[in-house]
Amino acid sequence: MADKQSTKPPSGTRDFLPNDIRRREHVVGVIRDVYERHGFEPLETPAFENIETLLGKYGEEGNKLIFKILKRGEHEHTGEADLALRYDLTVPLARVVAQYQNEIPKVFKRYQIQPVWRADRPARGRFREFFQCDIDSIGSTSPVIEADILGAVADTLRCLGFGEFAIRLNHRLVLAALLNVAGVGADGQADALVALDKLDKIGIEGVEREFLARGIEAAVAARCIELFNAPGGERPQAVLDRLAGILGSNDASLQNLRDIVALCDANSAGAHLRIDPSLARGLSYYTGAIMEIAVEGIGSLGGGGRYDGLVGMFLGRDVPACGFSIGLERIIVVMTERGMFPAEVAGSGVDVMVTIWNAGAASDALRLAGDLRRAGLRVDVYPEADKLARQFKYAASRGVPMVAVIGDDERARGEVSIKDMRSGDQRSVPRAEAAAAVARALGRAERN
Amino acid sequence: MADKQSTKPPSGTRDFLPNDIRRREHVVGVIRDVYERHGFEPLETPAFENIETLLGKYGEEGNKLIFKILKRGEHEHTGEADLALRYDLTVPLARVVAQYQNEIPKVFKRYQIQPVWRADRPARGRFREFFQCDIDSIGSTSPVIEADILGAVADTLRCLGFGEFAIRLNHRLVLAALLNVAGVGADGQADALVALDKLDKIGIEGVEREFLARGIEAAVAARCIELFNAPGGERPQAVLDRLAGILGSNDASLQNLRDIVALCDANSAGAHLRIDPSLARGLSYYTGAIMEIAVEGIGSLGGGGRYDGLVGMFLGRDVPACGFSIGLERIIVVMTERGMFPAEVAGSGVDVMVTIWNAGAASDALRLAGDLRRAGLRVDVYPEADKLARQFKYAASRGVPMVAVIGDDERARGEVSIKDMRSGDQRSVPRAEAAAAVARALGRAERN
Repeated sequence: MADKQSTKPPSGTRDFLPNDIRRREHVVGVIRDVYERHGFEPLETPAFENIETLLGKYGEEGNKLIFKILKRGEHEHTGEADLALRYDLTVPLARVVAQYQNEIPKVFKRYQIQPVWRADRPARGRFREFFQCDIDSIGSTSPVIEADILGAVADTLRCLGFGEFAIRLNHRLVLAALLNVAGVGADGQADALVALDKLDKIGIEGVEREFLARGIEAAVAARCIELFNAPGGERPQAVLDRLAGILGSNDASLQNLRDIVALCDANSAGAHLRIDPSLARGLSYYTGAIMEIAVEGIGSLGGGGRYDGLVGMFLGRDVPACGFSIGLERIIVVMTERGMFPAEVAGSGVDVMVTIWNAGAASDALRLAGDLRRAGLRVDVYPEADKLARQFKYAASRGVPMVAVIGDDERARGEVSIKDMRSGDQRSVPRAEAAAAVARALGRAERN
Repeated sequence: MADKQSTKPPSGTRDFLPNDIRRREHVVGVIRDVYERHGFEPLETPAFENIETLLGKYGEEGNKLIFKILKRGEHEHTGEADLALRYDLTVPLARVVAQYQNEIPKVFKRYQIQPVWRADRPARGRFREFFQCDIDSIGSTSPVIEADILGAVADTLRCLGFGEFAIRLNHRLVLAALLNVAGVGADGQADALVALDKLDKIGIEGVEREFLARGIEAAVAARCIELFNAPGGERPQAVLDRLAGILGSNDASLQNLRDIVALCDANSAGAHLRIDPSLARGLSYYTGAIMEIAVEGIGSLGGGGRYDGLVGMFLGRDVPACGFSIGLERIIVVMTERGMFPAEVAGSGVDVMVTIWNAGAASDALRLAGDLRRAGLRVDVYPEADKLARQFKYAASRGVPMVAVIGDDERARGEVSIKDMRSGDQRSVPRAEAAAAVARALGRAERN
């Protein structure tokens, strides 16, 4: 057996067995439905891009995590790569907007639910192949865009069954202005943001230590923490007023946040909104509002923001843009742990199995299966004539709730015997009523 | 602009804009529904596999068409590849069956609808990223398996709207036995099959020329053609009787085909079945029945067969298996050309757009949008206060059928003005009835 091949999926990737898929499809179905009700339309892009499309868009660290595809044919031996796997859904969108500028509407609202690939070190809950569910609006600087996106995100979480969650909102320029006020110069800001981003996790003292380790003076660090620490319970309006006291009441970025907060009062995001001056979001392409959703005890389920410069890297002129990305894996883990999936998601993929009484009855079994399928039922046929006990055992092993038998007696009477595997009840019904009987036992409307 | 990046998708791949996705989702939805009604359960595997999993499975030509992924980090400079993009859905299935043998049922019926990647030269209708829709049954040698798979395929085509199609059926061992009878030795059979596979396209004379070019004697070629040529209208039973006259009435492979044909009489495959002794199917891993669906004027829409040896390459012991793969791209092209998509697939992704009367009315617009969304409608909000004419023009450019306006007059009366963009009709309704009015105008049931 030593020369047998490994049968595990590659490191950091997963096979999705039927129950995994049903859970994922449930979540994706809810997300897609909410996104569509918010007027976003579907887009998909290829799994790989020309390598130049991706390089230089995700910072130095990101570049290293991109999966690169070897040139083919006679060029293979050069060891060069010309293609690379999709790393996120935002850069491909920026390329698409540039490519189809004459075909897409002037405000392009698209959703995209596809896997992305990053060569991160795999860890619990961190995969090399994972799904992102993105919405983006391209073409407008209006704060209605941010409010609309946050409303869609809040509706999504509510429809999935999350009641308690916080939407953290900040603005890239407010962040920079506060760092200026605290005395952090332009070249120290990146370091300070990395430290501040951990405020939630490591607390005030942890951040102070990080600041010192990065060479930021204790006085500046203390001032930063004073400016950035916003108690969780503080109302958005109160935080904005406090920030106006620091940055001045005419600050345009603060006004932008005020507008977003006011508009969110009119949708389902409002009740969850929290201004958090310490929210930084890693990606360097954000230019305006930045946002993140967090659930107590879980952490971030997704984030986004305004990025008015990225499309310009492909189009040659800037186009305003704002988006949000929900990560699928953590949501599925949490919903599984908390038992948030509806019962039918955990059920079998088969409603009823038809047995084969003996070799001569196989055609009859296939005919019955056809009738049951036309009624909308999901029907399996046992593959061969076999001891009935073995056929029942197989149905039980697949979790199939109902089994149909046409034995010699049933055939003679034009009937089908139907066994409910959950209760053990078995009864005969006229063959023409078999589908209705199964549907009724499953508590389902029959399709015609 | 010379340094602007290319914004095209990589050669042989496509971006899927909203209308493309809606068409694809329609087809995938029908296929998935039929597959599930036939008791197949969903499976998905990672986009890439360890490279050893794929190499050596698809023949020499296949090896060259595999996209290989460069090792990462310190190993990148070696130019070596350790991963490769999925090339089909069958080899990953064989790996999965070996890996999860204790978790999957003893007969494992799975469907898988995912993209695969092949570095073929792109051409009209031939892509480097394309979707396969596979069903496979693992674990049984019974002819019920073949009949069940062919029934599912026939149902799929009928549910998509294809009335006329042929299911070509043959058997690998019948093929080999006929070649023996014709006098083609074991080492000439591969060449002969390549030529015979073109019988449909190049006719008898073309095949004779191919035979001669490959060094097969004229007498042998003539005998081959005599044996393999089956008139399209000939009934399966008649072809099988003729073949029995050549191979003997006890031939086990012929008996297997007889069983499959008899069982298919009990499902929707029967009416389309045709025994075609010249059907070869390229892949070398087939061991039993082989099958293909063909539509007049289009050609093959998919194919499959029994492959009882492939799983053994991973598991160390053979496991019987049979499957069928439907190709998505050609089906979509044909359905588009023939106008086979339902009207709603071609429609807009938005049911109604809410206008913003003036800056102070944005919150009110968002609130109305929320009400309409809760009623299940797909609702866009124009992103800012703007001339009403411009807002209507935008809605028209997106093909949105309905537009809702709350002007000062409407607000004073607690009403919403609703314009049907298709007819130009505009009327006011009480605000609480807006969702119902829109749903009614769209001929849709309101969701609550």
